[in-house]
Amino acid sequence: MVSMKEIAAICQVSVGTVSKALANQPGVSSETGERIRGVASRLRYRPNALVRSIQNGRSMSVAVACNAVEDPWGGMVLRGVLAGLCEAGYEALLLQWDWQVRSGEHMLRSMGERRVDGVIMFPPATPPTPAYLHELRTFPGPVIVLDQQWSRQEFHFVGTDDRLGTLAAVAHLRELGHTAIGCLHAPEVSTGVVRLQAVLEAMRRAGLAVRDHWLAPAATFADALAAASRLLTQADRPTALLCFNDEVAWGALNAALDLGLRVPADLALVGFADLPLAVQVRPPLTTVRQPKEELGRQGVRLLLERIAEGERQGLPLTPAQVLLPTELVVRHSTGPAPQR
Amino acid sequence: MVSMKEIAAICQVSVGTVSKALANQPGVSSETGERIRGVASRLRYRPNALVRSIQNGRSMSVAVACNAVEDPWGGMVLRGVLAGLCEAGYEALLLQWDWQVRSGEHMLRSMGERRVDGVIMFPPATPPTPAYLHELRTFPGPVIVLDQQWSRQEFHFVGTDDRLGTLAAVAHLRELGHTAIGCLHAPEVSTGVVRLQAVLEAMRRAGLAVRDHWLAPAATFADALAAASRLLTQADRPTALLCFNDEVAWGALNAALDLGLRVPADLALVGFADLPLAVQVRPPLTTVRQPKEELGRQGVRLLLERIAEGERQGLPLTPAQVLLPTELVVRHSTGPAPQR
Repeated sequence: MVSMKEIAAICQVSVGTVSKALANQPGVSSETGERIRGVASRLRYRPNALVRSIQNGRSMSVAVACNAVEDPWGGMVLRGVLAGLCEAGYEALLLQWDWQVRSGEHMLRSMGERRVDGVIMFPPATPPTPAYLHELRTFPGPVIVLDQQWSRQEFHFVGTDDRLGTLAAVAHLRELGHTAIGCLHAPEVSTGVVRLQAVLEAMRRAGLAVRDHWLAPAATFADALAAASRLLTQADRPTALLCFNDEVAWGALNAALDLGLRVPADLALVGFADLPLAVQVRPPLTTVRQPKEELGRQGVRLLLERIAEGERQGLPLTPAQVLLPTELVVRHSTGPAPQR
Repeated sequence: MVSMKEIAAICQVSVGTVSKALANQPGVSSETGERIRGVASRLRYRPNALVRSIQNGRSMSVAVACNAVEDPWGGMVLRGVLAGLCEAGYEALLLQWDWQVRSGEHMLRSMGERRVDGVIMFPPATPPTPAYLHELRTFPGPVIVLDQQWSRQEFHFVGTDDRLGTLAAVAHLRELGHTAIGCLHAPEVSTGVVRLQAVLEAMRRAGLAVRDHWLAPAATFADALAAASRLLTQADRPTALLCFNDEVAWGALNAALDLGLRVPADLALVGFADLPLAVQVRPPLTTVRQPKEELGRQGVRLLLERIAEGERQGLPLTPAQVLLPTELVVRHSTGPAPQR
């Protein structure tokens, strides 16, 4: 690509004159300015945004560290992140969480070296390594964590109100007369822990027993298929299952159908997220809807606020904690509790 | 963040000495070098990669323009792209196709200004605007197009061998005795056109009629549900449907089940892609497997080769055209043709 120096040589002016002419700054006659801009356009000169970034101290880019990009949930959050960044004129450098982040704190350092203006992380299914956490805490710019909390609430965070969402799901099952409520939960992620605790809280308040053998860990479709198959072949089986997310509910649905159980007549199922699959499976899933795209957009909003305020380090003094509301969407996978 | 100038002031040396010390270049005593590097480390100095990029003429970053990031197919290709870039030490700037690319050729220009070393585009469901195509053709670096061809084969391209994949699917149905084969096709994308043509070619060769009312356009789950419902309520209905992709096959499956048809006893279904859903639906789908992650990796490989060869423009003299093989995966959505 042609450089300012080459344009200067062609036009027989100084590099300083070319620079001023291309930026429409004063100090160049209108005739010379026209001539220089004409040459630059014909030779397809493009300004170097890297130079501009160094001069401004802003790169107008943000590092986005995401989990599995092929996961529909993550994809919908990412869509919101990209929309928010695009509208604000920012660009996204994408890091794939599992191999670039967990074991690769050097990637984050490299982002710092590229002078990204901030970092958005989502959804880190498992906690990062100590070396990575150190990079994050000392990162030269604001850091926003989406969806999953780590042990301490030390970073800015935007998630959904999973506790209230779960309480609404349990209340719905209670209204339908269910008392034998089981749970496919995800103990390894913070949202899984919050949702299970909310189930236990609601059951305790209602004076209902939660049987150990009605609970099983399941974070994926395959886990759920296996766990629900075991759980539903017990003589004393639950009449309803609260599932960690829609994928898990789908696995449980298949397990139930394989066992000849009717959903919802013999077993009620509730998912979490409201992914497209929720209306594609038969019967369509009752689920707790999370505002997925909005989660991404709110994360960007918070990040840009922090950037504008000049926040300079990953570990803020007063981390913001934002929880977006959820909504129970009742479809056809829940119905009145069977008479026993 | 601390600058070289500030480190120089603290250490009471020149900026040139700091620069040499941090790059471990000769001309600085080992004692002074140690002292400078110690200060830089304590004050968390980070080299500026933007400066390095300008000096080297390589930014070690690539623009990735993708369609819907929340689409599982695109996500799996993107995973391969990110893996390939990560292994080669490159970073990915992500553009969301629908709003940043279709109407926003300025985004691509901005990528040029940021001096990305190349562009990977996938999968653009609809052709870009003329202004965007112009930006792409004059882009200052190699451009690789994945999956979908536009009208002329003018860019480097990596896709899958959809024709052979489709012929294998038709041959499978023929072996099972099917003669009334219909097709839910996607006329608006190049892969849809190739797959439909291959169906017509195979049927013609086998001396079988393709009835107009056995064909319907459907590119999404919802399209497929509606189209298959119409198609399967005809008195003279097909006994098998070749579907544009797995999502479309899922929609057709639901339509069939809603109509009380058994799959595969009354209707055989074949998908395309082999997404996770193919083994999650009941019955699991027979489908044409595409090497999704490999598609992304091969695109990166081709791009890095072109970068290494110093290719400087979006429109190459001899565009590479790579087609990766597919594989028919037989599961339980296909069976012997029903006796009529």
